[in-house]
Amino acid sequence: MKGHLMKPLTILVIAIAIAASVLTALLYTVAAADDVPLPAGYRNWFHVNTMIVGKDSPLFDALGGMHNVHVNSTGEAALKKGGPYPDGTVFVTDLHDVTVSDGSYAEGPLIGVAVMAKDAKKYASTGGWGFQFFAGADPEKKIVTDATKQCFECHQPKKDQDYVYSTYIP
Amino acid sequence: MKGHLMKPLTILVIAIAIAASVLTALLYTVAAADDVPLPAGYRNWFHVNTMIVGKDSPLFDALGGMHNVHVNSTGEAALKKGGPYPDGTVFVTDLHDVTVSDGSYAEGPLIGVAVMAKDAKKYASTGGWGFQFFAGADPEKKIVTDATKQCFECHQPKKDQDYVYSTYIP
Repeated sequence: MKGHLMKPLTILVIAIAIAASVLTALLYTVAAADDVPLPAGYRNWFHVNTMIVGKDSPLFDALGGMHNVHVNSTGEAALKKGGPYPDGTVFVTDLHDVTVSDGSYAEGPLIGVAVMAKDAKKYASTGGWGFQFFAGADPEKKIVTDATKQCFECHQPKKDQDYVYSTYIP
Repeated sequence: MKGHLMKPLTILVIAIAIAASVLTALLYTVAAADDVPLPAGYRNWFHVNTMIVGKDSPLFDALGGMHNVHVNSTGEAALKKGGPYPDGTVFVTDLHDVTVSDGSYAEGPLIGVAVMAKDAKKYASTGGWGFQFFAGADPEKKIVTDATKQCFECHQPKKDQDYVYSTYIP
């Protein structure tokens, strides 16, 4: 009898443990994308570089537009030596439309703001970085629901630069 | 005799006056271009906008490259309401080469830094703005020797924006 009771109990305990860890993992994944805040004042942060992903680029559908990249003061020194970045570093891409006229490419209206925030422990599953994209720079319009698939997978090849594509251009 | 002496003296005085004013004007012109300093820390100033003047642009020879435009804190509020700008406003264009690859336009090495500094009295002859271009961001490599011809003439059509081409893009 005792042996018969123990077995279902053990199974139940294991099942609860699995369910709990799956739930924790799920909550963690959601949190990793969801709790990255939209920073203020980033247009006064250090201007890292600008890139235009044009209509002829294979990346246009996902990343088309003018990327104005900034880093906060916490990450400025690390950028200049090519990483790694300290916790508290935040990169912002101020993404705008592009108007092409007579051979010139001018900045158009805002599309949204991409954020990469470093916290090695909190975002351990995505290289120590939290990711979010705010459509129209609206703190309520969060596009990233799965940071691993939507962001981190494309940043993985840059592991030797602490997953950051941008480099310092003097 | 007296009349004869007066005449050459008068001519001499007038000649000296003319020479002095010509010299003053010349010095002023030189000063207007020459005494605009290269500011520091402009990559941490407010990022106004970025524009690429590409190889197909009629402006390429004069202005080709990626123009990363910044304004100092003195001019930030005025930018947001479209001018006019208070004395002490400084605009900087951090001009870089552009690398085109697979439909994307990336920021290349630094070409130089263009500066527009507002002092309504000092630079009255060029709309209240002093102009300079520092090749390679070297404070010794000043390219502007005639601010009127090299800079102000092209800024004149923007008189209603206090001679500033850039506008605020939220």
